[in-house]
Amino acid sequence: MNTHTRKPLPDLFLNALKLSLGDQVSTALAVREHHGRDESMYDICPPDAVVFARSTEDVVTVVKLCNEYEVPVIPFGVGSSIEGHVLPFSGGVTIDFSEMNQVVAINPEDLTATVQAGVTRKQLNQEIRHTGLFFPIDPGADASIGGMAATRASGTNAVRYGTMRDNVLSLTVVTAEGKVIRTASRAKKSAAGYDLTAIFVGSEGTLGIITEVTVKLHVQPEGISAAICSFPTVQDAVQCVISTIQMGIPIARVEIMDTAAVNAVNQYSQLSLKESPVLLFEFHGTPASVEEQATMVQEIAKESGGLDFSWATQTEDRSKLWTARHNAFFASMQLKPGCRGVSTDVCVPISRLAESIDITIQELAKSTIPYTIVGHVGDGNYHVILLIDRHNSEEVAEMERINHGIVQRAIEMDGTCTGEHGVGVHKMSFLVEEHGEDALDMMRALKRAFDPKNILNPGKIVHLKNT
Amino acid sequence: MNTHTRKPLPDLFLNALKLSLGDQVSTALAVREHHGRDESMYDICPPDAVVFARSTEDVVTVVKLCNEYEVPVIPFGVGSSIEGHVLPFSGGVTIDFSEMNQVVAINPEDLTATVQAGVTRKQLNQEIRHTGLFFPIDPGADASIGGMAATRASGTNAVRYGTMRDNVLSLTVVTAEGKVIRTASRAKKSAAGYDLTAIFVGSEGTLGIITEVTVKLHVQPEGISAAICSFPTVQDAVQCVISTIQMGIPIARVEIMDTAAVNAVNQYSQLSLKESPVLLFEFHGTPASVEEQATMVQEIAKESGGLDFSWATQTEDRSKLWTARHNAFFASMQLKPGCRGVSTDVCVPISRLAESIDITIQELAKSTIPYTIVGHVGDGNYHVILLIDRHNSEEVAEMERINHGIVQRAIEMDGTCTGEHGVGVHKMSFLVEEHGEDALDMMRALKRAFDPKNILNPGKIVHLKNT
Repeated sequence: MNTHTRKPLPDLFLNALKLSLGDQVSTALAVREHHGRDESMYDICPPDAVVFARSTEDVVTVVKLCNEYEVPVIPFGVGSSIEGHVLPFSGGVTIDFSEMNQVVAINPEDLTATVQAGVTRKQLNQEIRHTGLFFPIDPGADASIGGMAATRASGTNAVRYGTMRDNVLSLTVVTAEGKVIRTASRAKKSAAGYDLTAIFVGSEGTLGIITEVTVKLHVQPEGISAAICSFPTVQDAVQCVISTIQMGIPIARVEIMDTAAVNAVNQYSQLSLKESPVLLFEFHGTPASVEEQATMVQEIAKESGGLDFSWATQTEDRSKLWTARHNAFFASMQLKPGCRGVSTDVCVPISRLAESIDITIQELAKSTIPYTIVGHVGDGNYHVILLIDRHNSEEVAEMERINHGIVQRAIEMDGTCTGEHGVGVHKMSFLVEEHGEDALDMMRALKRAFDPKNILNPGKIVHLKNT
Repeated sequence: MNTHTRKPLPDLFLNALKLSLGDQVSTALAVREHHGRDESMYDICPPDAVVFARSTEDVVTVVKLCNEYEVPVIPFGVGSSIEGHVLPFSGGVTIDFSEMNQVVAINPEDLTATVQAGVTRKQLNQEIRHTGLFFPIDPGADASIGGMAATRASGTNAVRYGTMRDNVLSLTVVTAEGKVIRTASRAKKSAAGYDLTAIFVGSEGTLGIITEVTVKLHVQPEGISAAICSFPTVQDAVQCVISTIQMGIPIARVEIMDTAAVNAVNQYSQLSLKESPVLLFEFHGTPASVEEQATMVQEIAKESGGLDFSWATQTEDRSKLWTARHNAFFASMQLKPGCRGVSTDVCVPISRLAESIDITIQELAKSTIPYTIVGHVGDGNYHVILLIDRHNSEEVAEMERINHGIVQRAIEMDGTCTGEHGVGVHKMSFLVEEHGEDALDMMRALKRAFDPKNILNPGKIVHLKNT
């Protein structure tokens, strides 16, 4: 990352910032270092200052000054991004959203809620519990809703409820000039001009800074059941999923873990799952429809070679299973103490998924790097968690080689280099391979139009030519 | 529309066009006039030439020439847009897509199909029938898929299956410079950079020209049933819908017709529906879940004052009901022979829908213009069809006044001026009211970035300042 040029903050700028925002501004090393890392494997890269915003107006103040002095400005949620999204490689000011943590409005009749960008997904679900509604998007971390919107996050519920793309209705955004716009109304659908909401969802802080998010909520299902089933091979498991989706069964979650991941969660979560690839299912609906869906899937699993199909209708059992799945990343890391877990994130058309995973496993067999595989298999999205010592350059190079191979094959299969993690800095070169230079030129044109001085989280998503 | 300047086509340009595309180019008056109208109430405004494209390469040829000579270029599907979207007010070349009508690929395992932009929705459904899949988006007309993508269309199925925003996976687009880009892979989800797909969906030919569309398909439900229920008032009907949605019942369609619309379809389709506001329901799922959903909705309808709830489980009865609904626009026009039907298109948060319709009815009562109301009530979207003589300037002014009032109230209720019809020229001023100048400036920046010479369907969606 030493290609980035880093200029010190102008004194005039810092003075103006402190004059406007007082003790909301910090230049303490510990604070800066905390905002100089995420879950990626990059070294700490602290910003020059951190501002703890309390309102959209505070963000306007910061951005206007950054615009005037051409200082980079980077929004920061909980720091759970994993591709270096929030690292200020060119220095500048990080805006921390942890104090913008108010649920602004809940509209149960409309199935919507509006939150400040720093509200986390678990906090939102806690605060709307009494309404009988829930917010389904669940990346591994308890991320901020603003950060999830900015990275177009998803998780285990996406097969039924969609991703942030589908669940963000409107955003309040501070533009590079420091103007405040709202991208859309709360109408459930609209054809009123360019889709500003979709432009900012997934833009990773490079086009504008999200300060409020209106999300869709969903009705808590009356009936929920979960099941787990082992399969002889990953292919059999994937075939079961394809058949399930082709039957039109509105499955709420379907996750795969390979044998290595099963071993890891068995150890980490004290479970005794059969050491074989497994699918975890969850069904939502009325009690009758849940039973019907589950019976149909049980039948399909049997036809696909499923070895055992066991139920978890009790909340406690269900919660245990899903906690194990959610902890798969940490469980994997125990396989190699002191290691770093690096996760790939390709997503392919589901017809190519078994093949994609199959070749990946063959390639991984040639390497000595320990790994596990988990995946949101209903969407064609899977993660290989590669366990490396990030200070061992050979292991890092080997990890990058494996990751690149997985990405190249996914692109050949008409898939994407990232289903849900986003681009950050780590996947910028993959974007060229996936979209081609002409499409990237359109992205560059958009970036230049929305951020002419390149102050908004610069150096992320697309390389700007000639700059 | 006389504010637009219209320059004749340069001879050199026309010669070059004919040299490249021969008899695919027409300057015959009848052909030009056919492409100079849509379903709006504007006078015919013919383009200077029409090109019948047969491939993406043909479109590239046209756009490159238009770019070189700074000639406006307008894509044309079946001409069913209703806000003047395709009218070449500044002259130029219209590209007709009717010969780009091939289904390029059907991928049943992935639930996707790729079509040339001129394929219509009914044609697509015909061609995929054998797969057990269907494409749900159903605007009134048998529109082209390219046109539907360009206007972010929806219809009666959107409450369950979403709009074109949700159902377009990827696009092939010719940019203003004549480059061909593909906006995304066929992966079901992606976080790989800016959402180019969403940028072009709803851009009405002003940012690029869509030549191919990859859409999501859905599994034909094993069980379908439909029902109809009358209510004493529109408010009662809307309350029934709110309760249905809050129960999380995955209703496939729920449409409202007011008493006037019921009268109109009774006459037009020889039905004998009770002369009272009605809801039409459709349920999709397994036979058991369809029955369960319908039973629950029947109960809710009863509690909301529903007067009678009658089933249409037979395909024929169902088809008769839905045909009547789809013909409501034409049926309405019979109420005033020789008239023009002008449709409003607001969409509001559903909690405000009854109030929105209620005030609208009060306002309409003060006018002498005949009207009917139909609506995709599950989405908060409704249409007032105003029957006017478009050559009577008083009636036109009265219609515009009513429409503007409906839009202003919808915006006050945090709704949108257009749920599904798009902006064209007719709603450009509403866009300012809805989004504000700062958000519109972002739209203008996008337009300038993607179409610096303003050749792509110029004069639509946003007024560019200082031009």
